[in-house]
Amino acid sequence: MHVTIVEIYVKKENIEDFIQATLENFEDSIREPGNLRFDVLQCIDDPARFTLYEAYESEDAARAHKNTAHYLHWKKTVESWMEKPRVGIAHRVIAPVERKQWKA
Amino acid sequence: MHVTIVEIYVKKENIEDFIQATLENFEDSIREPGNLRFDVLQCIDDPARFTLYEAYESEDAARAHKNTAHYLHWKKTVESWMEKPRVGIAHRVIAPVERKQWKA
Repeated sequence: MHVTIVEIYVKKENIEDFIQATLENFEDSIREPGNLRFDVLQCIDDPARFTLYEAYESEDAARAHKNTAHYLHWKKTVESWMEKPRVGIAHRVIAPVERKQWKA
Repeated sequence: MHVTIVEIYVKKENIEDFIQATLENFEDSIREPGNLRFDVLQCIDDPARFTLYEAYESEDAARAHKNTAHYLHWKKTVESWMEKPRVGIAHRVIAPVERKQWKA
């Protein structure tokens, strides 16, 4: 399993636009064959800071996400709403180790 | 739902100790009544950097975790292994919104 955690800082005036565009990306992303989770989170202490928690069954599946039409559309849509460049950090999974513990 | 993402930097010589102690904490934490996820991740580019992804059904349940015997034992055990103080960031959930989409 492979988890990318993406930290995103959005311009204050685009917070609602960003949420809407990201919900559309969420709906398509969870339907990708290798996707396990695509959680969209908003920081409580800073509502302009978001985290995407993207779990895939393999590094290949995570890479494939970046070639999907919905990801490319999202990327282009949100580009001008970023307060600064977003950062994605790749992780290996220590626990839980079974695929069935990931996909609800 | 409430998600705390905890960033942890461990001293290189304590990486294996940390993983072992954190797996014990994982096993007990996922059995807490309000727990939805307790994912333990290791950064691929920096194996001394770990992330805990702690999802609870409420802020109260997240707070209750910090009073459990297993959390307090883990906290004391890992204390001297930290490279620097760990940081936990609290989030609200934008998606997915149903509890059944969280607990596999």
